[in-house]
Amino acid sequence: MRATTLHDLKDIRFTEVPDPVIEAPTDAIVKITASCICGSDLWNYRGDNTITPGMTIGHECLGIVEEVGSSVTSFRPGDFVIVPFCHCDNTCPHCLAGVQSACTHVGFTMSGQAEYTRVTQAEGTLYKVPGDPGAELMPSLLSLTDVMATGWHAAVAAGVRKGGTAVVVGDGAVGLCGVIAASVMGAEKVIAMSRHADRQKLAMEFGATHIVATRGEEGEAEVLELTDGVGADAVLECVGTGQAMNTAFSVARPGAMVGFVGAPHGVTLPVRQMFVKNVGLAGGMAPVRRYLDELLPLVLDGRIDPGRVFDMTLPLESVADGYRAMDERTAIKVFLQP
Amino acid sequence: MRATTLHDLKDIRFTEVPDPVIEAPTDAIVKITASCICGSDLWNYRGDNTITPGMTIGHECLGIVEEVGSSVTSFRPGDFVIVPFCHCDNTCPHCLAGVQSACTHVGFTMSGQAEYTRVTQAEGTLYKVPGDPGAELMPSLLSLTDVMATGWHAAVAAGVRKGGTAVVVGDGAVGLCGVIAASVMGAEKVIAMSRHADRQKLAMEFGATHIVATRGEEGEAEVLELTDGVGADAVLECVGTGQAMNTAFSVARPGAMVGFVGAPHGVTLPVRQMFVKNVGLAGGMAPVRRYLDELLPLVLDGRIDPGRVFDMTLPLESVADGYRAMDERTAIKVFLQP
Repeated sequence: MRATTLHDLKDIRFTEVPDPVIEAPTDAIVKITASCICGSDLWNYRGDNTITPGMTIGHECLGIVEEVGSSVTSFRPGDFVIVPFCHCDNTCPHCLAGVQSACTHVGFTMSGQAEYTRVTQAEGTLYKVPGDPGAELMPSLLSLTDVMATGWHAAVAAGVRKGGTAVVVGDGAVGLCGVIAASVMGAEKVIAMSRHADRQKLAMEFGATHIVATRGEEGEAEVLELTDGVGADAVLECVGTGQAMNTAFSVARPGAMVGFVGAPHGVTLPVRQMFVKNVGLAGGMAPVRRYLDELLPLVLDGRIDPGRVFDMTLPLESVADGYRAMDERTAIKVFLQP
Repeated sequence: MRATTLHDLKDIRFTEVPDPVIEAPTDAIVKITASCICGSDLWNYRGDNTITPGMTIGHECLGIVEEVGSSVTSFRPGDFVIVPFCHCDNTCPHCLAGVQSACTHVGFTMSGQAEYTRVTQAEGTLYKVPGDPGAELMPSLLSLTDVMATGWHAAVAAGVRKGGTAVVVGDGAVGLCGVIAASVMGAEKVIAMSRHADRQKLAMEFGATHIVATRGEEGEAEVLELTDGVGADAVLECVGTGQAMNTAFSVARPGAMVGFVGAPHGVTLPVRQMFVKNVGLAGGMAPVRRYLDELLPLVLDGRIDPGRVFDMTLPLESVADGYRAMDERTAIKVFLQP
């Protein structure tokens, strides 16, 4: 098949690789009908993680079941499915506790920007989409494989509550989905920290009530002012850098939680500040499968439209242009069509 | 008055110092009838914090109100009061949110091991003990000024729930009070990590169902075995060192919270592990005042007896012997009588 592969720093190609095959009876092969590029793919692209030349990349996709292993009984070829980026059996104690991202059989989509991908633990991982959703719903359905579920997880971990104040640090696709989550959960003030006009606009349309366009101490002071000097009841840290984390802890009111979902890079947690302020940290890799029962109806009913985070659509073979656009921040998130 | 003072590394004296006086209309002076030595006093004693020669020390005490400032209306000379180690107005937004330890007017007991101490924000800080509790209740009442409330805070922050599993890391007075808290909150398994026979015995009497006497990887493996390979639902980190924190995160099941209450010393939080396992951290300096409505009746009704953490009683003037005993771990906690 043809797949997106990474060869070196910023060297993304669309090349021929071996077809994925059923390796275990719990596997399924999905023919990808839509995929996209994630902010976390950029960590690889920029060389922040180790690159194995020729490695396939991409973990957000949906499509049609092509083939299933012998122990997969709930899905069959032809089913249209959402593929959560982290695979899970959905039966182990961690899954039953709602932490499918720490499943004892956890796996990951390894060739999401390709023609096909192998899904491990297909019985627990895959999620059938009922009916025949139109093309216009595809971006939002695709967002459920990662970013929308991840933004939702940040809000859950931060303990967003009806009537409270939520601050979202980060205006990438996850941060914008975090704005949706905080708004749906009933936060009265949703403060989006964003420096980019197009993202600010989308944040407001997604339910943000205030925008803070400054960063660092200036931005923190602005949030404090917006919260009557008290700080925010809940903070969604949707970046994963040290600076974002510091801002998150600074704007949190004593007793609040910071919900974090960005894979941490160069983060040293301010444990003394956490102790003195009683500000906690929770979250981590999103247990996507857990939230689909809740999120899919919101998408199908048109109550949320997270697909709007995609502001560029490219044919899959032009995937390298998509990485460049996201790396240079000329696109928020790139939708790829086969 | 005579007070305990610290002069240099491990140089504790009982000396003459100026009497504390009302400095603000919100102050009160309390004549101390019982006090004690805290594990966190040892950080100073051992030189882990900066020592100002001659500084008074001690922050756990109770006694009789001697004098009040002009704006203190709920207390008058002669009242028998508990003095929470952290002072608060109990009216600011942080206090109202239950984080009295981050009160906008926060203060601390500065001469707790002395004849008198000044209490700031007395109206919000002090807590009257009803009736005429006998001498045998004094140790437990004294524990409410810090360690019992702190152990309780660890359990609250860790989210201990009825029927769940709680691990308590640390067998100091706070850890032992954490065992009481987890037990009262209904945890079905309460696993105390303790290497000392006397503390193990007390932990069992306080409600621990299991003791893990090993440390590091060996201890972690033992906890994992006791929790069917899943890990603990709630972890109380009651030490404040890097090793204790690492153990706490290792024994927590994915999705669990670590409640921490030991002032962190040399702690680097394992943010990657937290992310991958979805294990959160909450807690900090205990909002003692918040818990007194709940804890005092438990003591007065005899449902809990945290005063048993005191295994040595000394006259206040022999305070230096008490520090030595706690430093050498020949005493769990030392009760001081004027």
